Amino acid sequence: MSNQPPLTLVKIGGHVIEYEDSLNAFLRQFAQLEGDKILVHGGGQSASAMAHRLGIVEKKEQGRRITDKETLEVVTMVYGGLVNKKLVASLQSLGINALGLTGADGNAISAKKRPNHPIDYGFVGDVVADDVNLNFFEQLLRMGITPVIAPLTHDKKGHLLNTNADTLAAQVAIAMQVYRPVRLLFCFEQKGVWSNSQSQSTIKELSSRLRNQLFQEGVIQDGMVPKLTNAFCALENGVQEIRILHFADLLDWQMGKEPGTKMVSSK
Amino acid sequence: MSNQPPLTLVKIGGHVIEYEDSLNAFLRQFAQLEGDKILVHGGGQSASAMAHRLGIVEKKEQGRRITDKETLEVVTMVYGGLVNKKLVASLQSLGINALGLTGADGNAISAKKRPNHPIDYGFVGDVVADDVNLNFFEQLLRMGITPVIAPLTHDKKGHLLNTNADTLAAQVAIAMQVYRPVRLLFCFEQKGVWSNSQSQSTIKELSSRLRNQLFQEGVIQDGMVPKLTNAFCALENGVQEIRILHFADLLDWQMGKEPGTKMVSSK
Repeated sequence: MSNQPPLTLVKIGGHVIEYEDSLNAFLRQFAQLEGDKILVHGGGQSASAMAHRLGIVEKKEQGRRITDKETLEVVTMVYGGLVNKKLVASLQSLGINALGLTGADGNAISAKKRPNHPIDYGFVGDVVADDVNLNFFEQLLRMGITPVIAPLTHDKKGHLLNTNADTLAAQVAIAMQVYRPVRLLFCFEQKGVWSNSQSQSTIKELSSRLRNQLFQEGVIQDGMVPKLTNAFCALENGVQEIRILHFADLLDWQMGKEPGTKMVSSK
Repeated sequence: MSNQPPLTLVKIGGHVIEYEDSLNAFLRQFAQLEGDKILVHGGGQSASAMAHRLGIVEKKEQGRRITDKETLEVVTMVYGGLVNKKLVASLQSLGINALGLTGADGNAISAKKRPNHPIDYGFVGDVVADDVNLNFFEQLLRMGITPVIAPLTHDKKGHLLNTNADTLAAQVAIAMQVYRPVRLLFCFEQKGVWSNSQSQSTIKELSSRLRNQLFQEGVIQDGMVPKLTNAFCALENGVQEIRILHFADLLDWQMGKEPGTKMVSSK
Protein backbone atom coordinates (compact mmCIF):
# COMPACT_ATOMS: atom_id res chain seq x y z
CA MET A 1 0.00 0.00 0.00
CA SER A 2 1.42 3.37 -0.99
CA ASN A 3 1.12 6.76 0.66
CA GLN A 4 -1.78 7.71 -1.59
CA PRO A 5 -4.82 9.23 0.14
CA PRO A 6 -7.54 6.74 1.13
CA LEU A 7 -10.24 5.61 -1.26
CA THR A 8 -13.88 5.38 -0.21
CA LEU A 9 -15.87 2.76 -2.05
CA VAL A 10 -19.63 3.02 -1.58
CA LYS A 11 -22.12 0.36 -2.62
CA ILE A 12 -25.72 1.53 -2.97
CA GLY A 13 -28.56 -0.90 -3.45
CA GLY A 14 -31.98 -1.95 -2.35
CA HIS A 15 -35.03 0.30 -2.41
CA VAL A 16 -32.92 3.47 -2.30
CA ILE A 17 -32.30 3.41 -6.05
CA GLU A 18 -35.98 3.07 -6.88
CA TYR A 19 -37.25 6.24 -5.22
CA GLU A 20 -36.17 9.66 -6.40
CA ASP A 21 -36.29 11.27 -2.93
CA SER A 22 -34.14 8.66 -1.21
CA LEU A 23 -31.77 8.46 -4.17
CA ASN A 24 -31.26 12.22 -4.21
CA ALA A 25 -30.75 12.29 -0.43
CA PHE A 26 -28.06 9.64 -0.83
CA LEU A 27 -26.39 11.34 -3.80
CA ARG A 28 -26.21 14.70 -2.06
CA GLN A 29 -24.30 13.04 0.79
CA PHE A 30 -22.15 10.95 -1.52
CA ALA A 31 -21.21 14.11 -3.44
CA GLN A 32 -19.97 15.68 -0.20
CA LEU A 33 -17.66 12.80 0.71
CA GLU A 34 -14.13 14.11 0.69
CA GLY A 35 -11.31 12.49 -1.25
CA ASP A 36 -11.31 9.91 -3.99
CA LYS A 37 -14.34 7.68 -4.24
CA ILE A 38 -16.03 4.99 -6.31
CA LEU A 39 -19.73 4.19 -6.42
CA VAL A 40 -21.02 0.67 -7.12
CA HIS A 41 -24.75 0.33 -7.66
CA GLY A 42 -27.36 -2.41 -7.89
CA GLY A 43 -30.75 -2.08 -9.52
CA GLY A 44 -32.37 -5.49 -9.27
CA GLN A 45 -35.83 -4.13 -8.51
CA SER A 46 -35.81 -1.79 -11.53
CA ALA A 47 -34.65 -4.70 -13.68
CA SER A 48 -37.42 -6.96 -12.36
CA ALA A 49 -40.00 -4.24 -13.02
CA MET A 50 -38.73 -3.75 -16.58
CA ALA A 51 -38.69 -7.52 -17.22
CA HIS A 52 -42.29 -7.65 -16.01
CA ARG A 53 -43.31 -4.77 -18.31
CA LEU A 54 -41.70 -6.60 -21.22
CA GLY A 55 -43.53 -9.80 -20.36
CA ILE A 56 -40.34 -11.67 -19.55
CA VAL A 57 -40.93 -14.36 -16.95
CA GLU A 58 -38.22 -14.47 -14.30
CA LYS A 59 -36.62 -17.90 -14.13
CA LYS A 60 -35.25 -19.24 -10.87
CA GLU A 61 -33.38 -22.35 -9.76
CA GLN A 62 -33.31 -23.09 -6.02
CA GLY A 63 -34.39 -19.50 -5.34
CA ARG A 64 -31.67 -17.89 -7.44
CA ARG A 65 -32.31 -15.99 -10.64
CA ILE A 66 -31.26 -17.34 -14.01
CA THR A 67 -29.86 -14.78 -16.43
CA ASP A 68 -30.93 -16.04 -19.86
CA LYS A 69 -30.30 -14.05 -23.04
CA GLU A 70 -33.34 -11.81 -22.77
CA THR A 71 -32.79 -11.22 -19.05
CA LEU A 72 -29.20 -10.22 -19.83
CA GLU A 73 -30.57 -7.66 -22.30
CA VAL A 74 -32.86 -6.27 -19.62
CA VAL A 75 -30.11 -5.92 -17.00
CA THR A 76 -27.77 -4.43 -19.60
CA MET A 77 -30.41 -1.81 -20.41
CA VAL A 78 -31.42 -1.14 -16.83
CA TYR A 79 -28.10 -1.41 -14.95
CA GLY A 80 -25.79 -0.15 -17.70
CA GLY A 81 -28.22 2.40 -19.16
CA LEU A 82 -31.13 3.62 -17.08
CA VAL A 83 -29.78 3.40 -13.52
CA ASN A 84 -26.12 4.08 -14.29
CA LYS A 85 -26.72 7.14 -16.47
CA LYS A 86 -29.30 8.60 -14.07
CA LEU A 87 -26.71 8.38 -11.28
CA VAL A 88 -23.97 9.87 -13.48
CA ALA A 89 -26.08 12.80 -14.71
CA SER A 90 -27.25 13.54 -11.15
CA LEU A 91 -23.71 13.46 -9.78
CA GLN A 92 -22.54 15.77 -12.57
CA SER A 93 -25.20 18.27 -11.48
CA LEU A 94 -23.79 18.02 -7.93
CA GLY A 95 -20.29 18.91 -9.09
CA ILE A 96 -18.89 15.37 -9.15
CA ASN A 97 -17.17 14.32 -12.37
CA ALA A 98 -18.77 10.87 -12.51
CA LEU A 99 -18.05 8.31 -15.22
CA GLY A 100 -20.37 5.33 -15.64
CA LEU A 101 -18.86 1.94 -16.32
CA THR A 102 -19.67 -1.69 -16.79
CA GLY A 103 -16.82 -4.16 -16.49
CA ALA A 104 -16.48 -4.15 -20.28
CA ASP A 105 -15.74 -0.42 -20.44
CA GLY A 106 -12.00 0.13 -20.45
CA ASN A 107 -11.77 -3.59 -19.67
CA ALA A 108 -12.44 -2.45 -16.10
CA ILE A 109 -13.57 -5.79 -14.65
CA SER A 110 -13.56 -9.14 -16.36
CA ALA A 111 -15.13 -12.29 -14.93
CA LYS A 112 -15.52 -15.98 -15.47
CA LYS A 113 -18.92 -17.20 -16.57
CA ARG A 114 -20.25 -19.43 -13.82
CA PRO A 115 -19.93 -23.12 -14.80
CA ASN A 116 -23.07 -24.72 -16.27
CA HIS A 117 -23.03 -27.53 -13.70
CA PRO A 118 -24.74 -28.41 -11.44
CA ILE A 119 -27.05 -25.49 -12.27
CA ASP A 120 -26.83 -23.31 -15.38
CA TYR A 121 -27.35 -19.77 -14.10
CA GLY A 122 -26.86 -18.39 -17.60
CA PHE A 123 -24.89 -15.19 -18.22
CA VAL A 124 -23.64 -14.77 -14.67
CA GLY A 125 -20.07 -13.77 -13.91
CA ASP A 126 -18.05 -14.55 -10.81
CA VAL A 127 -15.45 -11.92 -10.12
CA VAL A 128 -12.29 -12.00 -8.04
CA ALA A 129 -9.91 -9.16 -7.16
CA ASP A 130 -7.42 -10.26 -9.83
CA ASP A 131 -10.06 -9.48 -12.47
CA VAL A 132 -10.10 -5.80 -11.53
CA ASN A 133 -8.14 -3.49 -13.84
CA LEU A 134 -6.83 -1.46 -10.94
CA ASN A 135 -4.44 0.64 -13.01
CA PHE A 136 -7.38 1.84 -15.07
CA PHE A 137 -9.35 2.82 -11.95
CA GLU A 138 -6.30 4.53 -10.49
CA GLN A 139 -5.80 6.52 -13.71
CA LEU A 140 -9.43 7.65 -13.64
CA LEU A 141 -9.18 8.71 -9.99
CA ARG A 142 -6.04 10.72 -10.74
CA MET A 143 -7.97 12.49 -13.51
CA GLY A 144 -10.43 13.63 -10.83
CA ILE A 145 -13.06 11.19 -12.03
CA THR A 146 -15.49 9.28 -9.78
CA PRO A 147 -16.19 5.88 -11.36
CA VAL A 148 -19.81 4.70 -11.09
CA ILE A 149 -19.90 0.95 -11.62
CA ALA A 150 -22.92 -1.03 -12.84
CA PRO A 151 -23.07 -4.70 -11.73
CA LEU A 152 -22.04 -6.10 -15.10
CA THR A 153 -18.72 -7.67 -16.06
CA HIS A 154 -17.47 -9.19 -19.31
CA ASP A 155 -15.74 -12.39 -20.35
CA LYS A 156 -13.38 -10.70 -22.89
CA LYS A 157 -15.07 -12.84 -25.55
CA GLY A 158 -17.80 -10.34 -26.31
CA HIS A 159 -20.31 -11.25 -23.61
CA LEU A 160 -21.53 -9.15 -20.73
CA LEU A 161 -22.18 -11.04 -17.50
CA ASN A 162 -24.62 -10.26 -14.71
CA THR A 163 -22.62 -9.91 -11.49
CA ASN A 164 -23.60 -9.46 -7.85
CA ALA A 165 -23.06 -5.82 -6.91
CA ASP A 166 -21.96 -6.58 -3.34
CA THR A 167 -19.32 -8.99 -4.61
CA LEU A 168 -18.20 -6.48 -7.21
CA ALA A 169 -17.83 -3.77 -4.56
CA ALA A 170 -15.88 -6.06 -2.23
CA GLN A 171 -13.50 -7.30 -4.94
CA VAL A 172 -12.81 -3.79 -6.29
CA ALA A 173 -12.12 -2.68 -2.70
CA ILE A 174 -9.70 -5.57 -2.18
CA ALA A 175 -7.93 -4.89 -5.49
CA MET A 176 -7.52 -1.13 -5.00
CA GLN A 177 -5.55 -1.65 -1.78
CA VAL A 178 -2.44 -1.95 -3.94
CA TYR A 179 -2.63 1.83 -4.29
CA ARG A 180 -4.42 3.08 -1.19
CA PRO A 181 -6.08 2.31 2.11
CA VAL A 182 -9.69 1.48 1.23
CA ARG A 183 -12.91 2.03 3.18
CA LEU A 184 -15.89 0.00 1.97
CA LEU A 185 -19.39 1.21 2.84
CA PHE A 186 -22.49 -0.84 2.03
CA CYS A 187 -25.41 1.64 2.05
CA PHE A 188 -29.05 0.63 2.08
CA GLU A 189 -32.36 1.55 3.71
CA GLN A 190 -31.70 0.05 7.15
CA LYS A 191 -29.59 1.38 10.00
CA GLY A 192 -27.24 -1.59 9.95
CA VAL A 193 -27.29 -5.27 10.90
CA TRP A 194 -30.04 -6.06 13.40
CA SER A 195 -29.13 -7.50 16.78
CA ASN A 196 -32.41 -9.44 16.95
CA SER A 197 -35.55 -9.90 14.90
CA GLN A 198 -37.84 -7.94 17.22
CA SER A 199 -36.35 -4.59 18.24
CA GLN A 200 -34.66 -3.67 14.99
CA SER A 201 -31.81 -2.19 17.03
CA THR A 202 -28.50 -2.53 15.24
CA ILE A 203 -25.17 -4.05 16.16
CA LYS A 204 -22.25 -1.61 16.43
CA GLU A 205 -19.53 -4.18 15.78
CA LEU A 206 -19.99 -7.53 14.08
CA SER A 207 -17.45 -10.33 14.12
CA SER A 208 -17.77 -13.39 11.92
CA ARG A 209 -18.37 -15.44 15.08
CA LEU A 210 -21.35 -13.25 16.06
CA ARG A 211 -22.49 -13.28 12.44
CA ASN A 212 -22.62 -17.09 12.51
CA GLN A 213 -24.55 -17.05 15.78
CA LEU A 214 -27.14 -14.54 14.46
CA PHE A 215 -27.41 -16.55 11.26
CA GLN A 216 -28.22 -19.69 13.21
CA GLU A 217 -30.80 -17.78 15.27
CA GLY A 218 -32.43 -16.61 12.03
CA VAL A 219 -31.78 -12.93 12.76
CA ILE A 220 -29.52 -12.65 9.71
CA GLN A 221 -31.31 -13.87 6.60
CA ASP A 222 -32.15 -13.23 2.95
CA GLY A 223 -30.00 -10.64 1.17
CA MET A 224 -28.01 -9.89 4.31
CA VAL A 225 -26.34 -13.31 4.16
CA PRO A 226 -24.37 -12.82 0.90
CA LYS A 227 -23.78 -9.15 1.77
CA LEU A 228 -22.04 -10.18 4.97
CA THR A 229 -20.10 -12.92 3.20
CA ASN A 230 -18.72 -10.22 0.89
CA ALA A 231 -18.10 -7.85 3.79
CA PHE A 232 -16.08 -10.44 5.75
CA CYS A 233 -14.24 -11.44 2.59
CA ALA A 234 -13.08 -7.82 2.32
CA LEU A 235 -12.13 -7.79 6.01
CA GLU A 236 -10.10 -11.01 5.68
CA ASN A 237 -8.31 -9.45 2.72
CA GLY A 238 -7.19 -6.38 4.61
CA VAL A 239 -9.70 -3.69 3.65
CA GLN A 240 -9.20 -0.98 6.28
CA GLU A 241 -12.82 -0.37 7.25
CA ILE A 242 -16.03 -2.13 6.24
CA ARG A 243 -19.39 -0.84 7.37
CA ILE A 244 -23.06 -1.51 6.64
CA LEU A 245 -25.10 1.64 7.15
CA HIS A 246 -28.14 3.70 6.23
CA PHE A 247 -27.86 5.65 2.96
CA ALA A 248 -28.49 8.94 4.77
CA ASP A 249 -25.74 8.37 7.35
CA LEU A 250 -22.75 8.86 5.05
CA LEU A 251 -21.91 12.32 6.36
CA ASP A 252 -22.29 11.10 9.95
CA TRP A 253 -19.69 8.51 9.03
CA GLN A 254 -17.42 11.19 7.60
CA MET A 255 -17.71 13.14 10.85
CA GLY A 256 -16.56 10.07 12.79
CA LYS A 257 -19.93 9.25 14.35
CA GLU A 258 -19.57 5.55 13.47
CA PRO A 259 -23.12 4.88 12.22
CA GLY A 260 -24.35 1.41 11.30
CA THR A 261 -22.48 -1.87 11.76
CA LYS A 262 -18.71 -2.21 11.51
CA MET A 263 -17.10 -5.53 10.62
CA VAL A 264 -14.45 -6.60 13.14
CA SER A 265 -12.19 -9.62 13.50
CA SER A 266 -13.22 -12.38 15.88
CA LYS A 267 -11.02 -12.33 18.95
CA MET B 1 -3.34 21.63 -34.71
CA SER B 2 -0.40 19.79 -33.17
CA ASN B 3 1.85 17.13 -34.62
CA GLN B 4 -0.20 14.39 -33.02
CA PRO B 5 -1.13 11.45 -35.25
CA PRO B 6 -4.50 11.75 -37.00
CA LEU B 7 -7.76 10.73 -35.38
CA THR B 8 -10.38 8.71 -37.22
CA LEU B 9 -13.93 9.35 -36.06
CA VAL B 10 -16.46 6.81 -37.34
CA LYS B 11 -20.21 7.23 -37.07
CA ILE B 12 -22.26 4.04 -37.44
CA GLY B 13 -26.01 4.12 -37.79
CA GLY B 14 -28.98 2.85 -39.70
CA HIS B 15 -29.87 -0.81 -40.12
CA VAL B 16 -26.28 -1.93 -39.51
CA ILE B 17 -26.68 -1.80 -35.74
CA GLU B 18 -29.83 -3.92 -35.77
CA TYR B 19 -28.42 -7.03 -37.42
CA GLU B 20 -25.72 -9.09 -35.77
CA ASP B 21 -24.05 -10.12 -39.04
CA SER B 22 -23.69 -6.62 -40.44
CA LEU B 23 -22.70 -5.21 -37.06
CA ASN B 24 -19.98 -7.81 -36.60
CA ALA B 25 -18.71 -7.24 -40.15
CA PHE B 26 -18.46 -3.54 -39.38
CA LEU B 27 -16.80 -4.04 -35.99
CA ARG B 28 -14.16 -6.40 -37.39
CA GLN B 29 -13.16 -3.69 -39.87
CA PHE B 30 -13.38 -0.90 -37.32
CA ALA B 31 -11.10 -2.89 -34.99
CA GLN B 32 -8.49 -3.08 -37.75
CA LEU B 33 -8.37 0.66 -38.34
CA GLU B 34 -4.92 1.88 -37.45
CA GLY B 35 -4.26 4.73 -35.08
CA ASP B 36 -6.48 6.53 -32.61
CA LYS B 37 -10.19 6.32 -33.21
CA ILE B 38 -13.58 7.18 -31.78
CA LEU B 39 -16.89 5.47 -32.55
CA VAL B 40 -20.22 7.34 -32.44
CA HIS B 41 -23.34 5.22 -32.77
CA GLY B 42 -27.05 5.68 -33.33
CA GLY B 43 -29.73 3.18 -32.46
CA GLY B 44 -33.03 4.82 -33.34
CA GLN B 45 -34.57 1.64 -34.72
CA SER B 46 -33.76 -0.38 -31.60
CA ALA B 47 -35.22 2.42 -29.49
CA SER B 48 -38.41 2.53 -31.56
CA ALA B 49 -38.76 -1.24 -31.29
CA MET B 50 -38.30 -1.10 -27.51
CA ALA B 51 -40.78 1.78 -27.15
CA HIS B 52 -43.27 -0.27 -29.14
CA ARG B 53 -42.73 -3.33 -26.90
CA LEU B 54 -43.33 -1.14 -23.85
CA GLY B 55 -46.54 0.26 -25.35
CA ILE B 56 -45.13 3.78 -25.58
CA VAL B 57 -46.68 5.70 -28.46
CA GLU B 58 -44.12 7.68 -30.43
CA LYS B 59 -45.05 11.37 -30.54
CA LYS B 60 -44.14 13.52 -33.51
CA GLU B 61 -44.48 17.19 -34.43
CA GLN B 62 -44.05 18.10 -38.09
CA GLY B 63 -42.47 14.72 -38.72
CA ARG B 64 -39.88 15.01 -35.94
CA ARG B 65 -39.86 12.87 -32.82
CA ILE B 66 -40.68 14.32 -29.42
CA THR B 67 -38.56 13.03 -26.54
CA ASP B 68 -40.90 13.05 -23.56
CA LYS B 69 -39.89 11.67 -20.16
CA GLU B 70 -40.70 8.03 -20.92
CA THR B 71 -39.09 8.21 -24.36
CA LEU B 72 -35.95 9.63 -22.73
CA GLU B 73 -35.93 6.59 -20.43
CA VAL B 74 -36.16 4.28 -23.43
CA VAL B 75 -33.32 5.96 -25.35
CA THR B 76 -31.21 6.06 -22.18
CA MET B 77 -31.71 2.31 -21.78
CA VAL B 78 -31.26 1.44 -25.43
CA TYR B 79 -28.52 3.88 -26.56
CA GLY B 80 -26.62 4.14 -23.27
CA GLY B 81 -27.17 0.53 -22.19
CA LEU B 82 -28.12 -2.10 -24.74
CA VAL B 83 -26.45 -0.79 -27.92
CA ASN B 84 -23.48 0.93 -26.32
CA LYS B 85 -22.49 -2.00 -24.09
CA LYS B 86 -22.95 -4.55 -26.86
CA LEU B 87 -20.54 -2.54 -29.02
CA VAL B 88 -18.05 -2.15 -26.17
CA ALA B 89 -18.07 -5.84 -25.21
CA SER B 90 -17.68 -6.87 -28.87
CA LEU B 91 -14.78 -4.47 -29.43
CA GLN B 92 -13.08 -5.76 -26.27
CA SER B 93 -13.26 -9.27 -27.71
CA LEU B 94 -11.58 -7.92 -30.87
CA GLY B 95 -8.67 -6.50 -28.90
CA ILE B 96 -9.86 -2.88 -28.82
CA ASN B 97 -9.94 -1.25 -25.39
CA ALA B 98 -13.32 0.40 -25.89
CA LEU B 99 -14.99 2.63 -23.31
CA GLY B 100 -18.68 3.46 -23.66
CA LEU B 101 -19.83 6.98 -22.90
CA THR B 102 -22.82 9.23 -22.92
CA GLY B 103 -22.18 12.98 -22.79
CA ALA B 104 -22.76 12.88 -19.03
CA ASP B 105 -19.91 10.43 -18.40
CA GLY B 106 -16.76 12.34 -17.54
CA ASN B 107 -18.76 15.44 -18.53
CA ALA B 108 -17.74 14.42 -22.06
CA ILE B 109 -20.37 16.42 -23.98
CA SER B 110 -22.84 18.89 -22.59
CA ALA B 111 -25.66 20.46 -24.58
CA LYS B 112 -28.39 23.04 -24.41
CA LYS B 113 -31.94 21.75 -24.21
CA ARG B 114 -33.71 22.85 -27.37
CA PRO B 115 -36.02 25.85 -26.63
CA ASN B 116 -39.70 24.99 -26.02
CA HIS B 117 -40.88 27.40 -28.73
CA PRO B 118 -42.19 27.17 -31.36
CA ILE B 119 -42.26 23.40 -30.84
CA ASP B 120 -41.40 21.60 -27.61
CA TYR B 121 -39.28 18.64 -28.66
CA GLY B 122 -38.84 17.60 -25.04
CA PHE B 123 -35.50 16.30 -23.76
CA VAL B 124 -33.50 17.05 -26.89
CA GLY B 125 -30.05 18.60 -26.78
CA ASP B 126 -28.36 20.70 -29.42
CA VAL B 127 -24.61 20.34 -29.29
CA VAL B 128 -21.83 22.56 -30.63
CA ALA B 129 -18.10 21.92 -30.73
CA ASP B 130 -17.50 24.13 -27.66
CA ASP B 131 -19.56 21.67 -25.62
CA VAL B 132 -17.09 18.84 -26.25
CA ASN B 133 -14.68 18.10 -23.39
CA LEU B 134 -11.80 17.56 -25.77
CA ASN B 135 -9.15 17.30 -23.05
CA PHE B 136 -11.03 14.36 -21.62
CA PHE B 137 -11.21 12.60 -24.99
CA GLU B 138 -7.54 13.31 -25.61
CA GLN B 139 -6.62 11.83 -22.21
CA LEU B 140 -8.61 8.69 -22.99
CA LEU B 141 -6.95 8.32 -26.40
CA ARG B 142 -3.51 8.66 -24.83
CA MET B 143 -4.46 5.87 -22.41
CA GLY B 144 -4.99 3.65 -25.46
CA ILE B 145 -8.75 3.79 -25.08
CA THR B 146 -11.27 3.92 -27.94
CA PRO B 147 -14.28 5.99 -26.84
CA VAL B 148 -17.66 4.65 -27.99
CA ILE B 149 -20.19 7.47 -27.79
CA ALA B 150 -23.96 7.01 -27.44
CA PRO B 151 -26.12 9.84 -28.84
CA LEU B 152 -26.98 11.31 -25.43
CA THR B 153 -25.68 14.53 -23.90
CA HIS B 154 -26.44 16.24 -20.58
CA ASP B 155 -27.39 19.74 -19.43
CA LYS B 156 -25.13 19.70 -16.33
CA LYS B 157 -28.31 20.09 -14.26
CA GLY B 158 -28.96 16.37 -13.94
CA HIS B 159 -30.80 15.71 -17.20
CA LEU B 160 -29.76 13.55 -20.10
CA LEU B 161 -30.71 14.86 -23.53
CA ASN B 162 -31.43 12.95 -26.72
CA THR B 163 -29.01 14.19 -29.38
CA ASN B 164 -28.66 13.51 -33.09
CA ALA B 165 -25.76 11.09 -33.60
CA ASP B 166 -24.62 12.66 -36.90
CA THR B 167 -24.45 16.09 -35.28
CA LEU B 168 -22.62 14.63 -32.29
CA ALA B 169 -20.05 12.98 -34.57
CA ALA B 170 -19.50 16.16 -36.60
CA GLN B 171 -19.12 18.39 -33.53
CA VAL B 172 -16.70 16.00 -31.79
CA ALA B 173 -14.68 15.85 -35.04
CA ILE B 174 -14.58 19.66 -35.24
CA ALA B 175 -13.57 19.98 -31.58
CA MET B 176 -10.80 17.36 -31.69
CA GLN B 177 -8.93 19.26 -34.42
CA VAL B 178 -7.27 21.27 -31.64
CA TYR B 179 -5.13 18.20 -31.06
CA ARG B 180 -5.00 16.35 -34.36
CA PRO B 181 -5.99 16.17 -37.99
CA VAL B 182 -9.41 14.47 -37.99
CA ARG B 183 -11.02 12.19 -40.56
CA LEU B 184 -14.80 11.78 -40.20
CA LEU B 185 -16.46 8.71 -41.72
CA PHE B 186 -20.24 8.29 -41.77
CA CYS B 187 -20.85 4.55 -42.25
CA PHE B 188 -24.20 3.05 -43.17
CA GLU B 189 -25.75 0.38 -45.40
CA GLN B 190 -25.41 2.24 -48.72
CA LYS B 191 -22.37 2.75 -50.91
CA GLY B 192 -22.50 6.53 -50.58
CA VAL B 193 -24.63 9.43 -51.81
CA TRP B 194 -26.63 8.51 -54.91
CA SER B 195 -26.11 10.46 -58.13
CA ASN B 196 -29.75 9.93 -59.15
CA SER B 197 -32.82 8.16 -57.85
CA GLN B 198 -32.79 5.37 -60.45
CA SER B 199 -29.35 3.82 -60.87
CA GLN B 200 -28.20 3.90 -57.24
CA SER B 201 -24.72 4.70 -58.51
CA THR B 202 -22.85 6.90 -56.07
CA ILE B 203 -21.10 10.24 -56.37
CA LYS B 204 -17.34 10.20 -55.80
CA GLU B 205 -17.07 13.85 -54.76
CA LEU B 206 -19.90 16.00 -53.48
CA SER B 207 -19.77 19.79 -53.19
CA SER B 208 -22.42 21.77 -51.34
CA ARG B 209 -23.46 23.23 -54.71
CA LEU B 210 -24.09 19.75 -56.15
CA ARG B 211 -25.76 18.75 -52.88
CA ASN B 212 -28.23 21.64 -53.29
CA GLN B 213 -28.93 20.65 -56.88
CA LEU B 214 -29.57 16.98 -55.98
CA PHE B 215 -31.75 18.09 -53.07
CA GLN B 216 -33.91 20.20 -55.41
CA GLU B 217 -34.15 17.25 -57.81
CA GLY B 218 -35.36 15.06 -54.96
CA VAL B 219 -32.38 12.68 -55.22
CA ILE B 220 -31.19 13.62 -51.74
CA GLN B 221 -33.97 13.22 -49.20
CA ASP B 222 -35.01 11.91 -45.77
CA GLY B 223 -32.18 11.11 -43.36
CA MET B 224 -29.53 12.02 -45.92
CA VAL B 225 -30.46 15.72 -45.67
CA PRO B 226 -29.40 16.32 -42.04
CA LYS B 227 -26.46 13.91 -42.46
CA LEU B 228 -25.10 16.06 -45.28
CA THR B 229 -25.76 19.26 -43.35
CA ASN B 230 -23.55 17.85 -40.58
CA ALA B 231 -20.96 16.63 -43.09
CA PHE B 232 -20.64 20.05 -44.74
CA CYS B 233 -20.59 21.76 -41.35
CA ALA B 234 -17.53 19.64 -40.54
CA LEU B 235 -15.98 20.50 -43.92
CA GLU B 236 -16.54 24.25 -43.42
CA ASN B 237 -14.90 23.92 -40.01
CA GLY B 238 -11.72 22.40 -41.36
CA VAL B 239 -12.11 18.66 -40.75
CA GLN B 240 -9.47 17.09 -42.99
CA GLU B 241 -11.57 14.43 -44.68
CA ILE B 242 -15.29 13.69 -44.54
CA ARG B 243 -16.73 10.69 -46.27
CA ILE B 244 -20.06 8.83 -46.41
CA LEU B 245 -19.50 5.15 -47.13
CA HIS B 246 -20.67 1.58 -46.75
CA PHE B 247 -19.97 -0.01 -43.36
CA ALA B 248 -17.97 -2.82 -44.98
CA ASP B 249 -15.71 -0.44 -46.93
CA LEU B 250 -13.68 0.86 -44.01
CA LEU B 251 -10.59 -1.18 -44.81
CA ASP B 252 -10.84 -0.18 -48.49
CA TRP B 253 -10.74 3.39 -47.22
CA GLN B 254 -7.69 2.61 -45.10
CA MET B 255 -5.96 1.17 -48.18
CA GLY B 256 -6.57 4.43 -50.07
CA LYS B 257 -9.26 3.09 -52.38
CA GLU B 258 -11.53 6.11 -51.75
CA PRO B 259 -14.86 4.28 -51.35
CA GLY B 260 -18.16 6.15 -51.02
CA THR B 261 -18.72 9.87 -51.33
CA LYS B 262 -16.18 12.49 -50.28
CA MET B 263 -17.26 16.01 -49.33
CA VAL B 264 -15.38 18.69 -51.27
CA SER B 265 -15.53 22.49 -51.36
CA SER B 266 -17.54 24.15 -54.14
CA LYS B 267 -15.20 25.74 -56.66
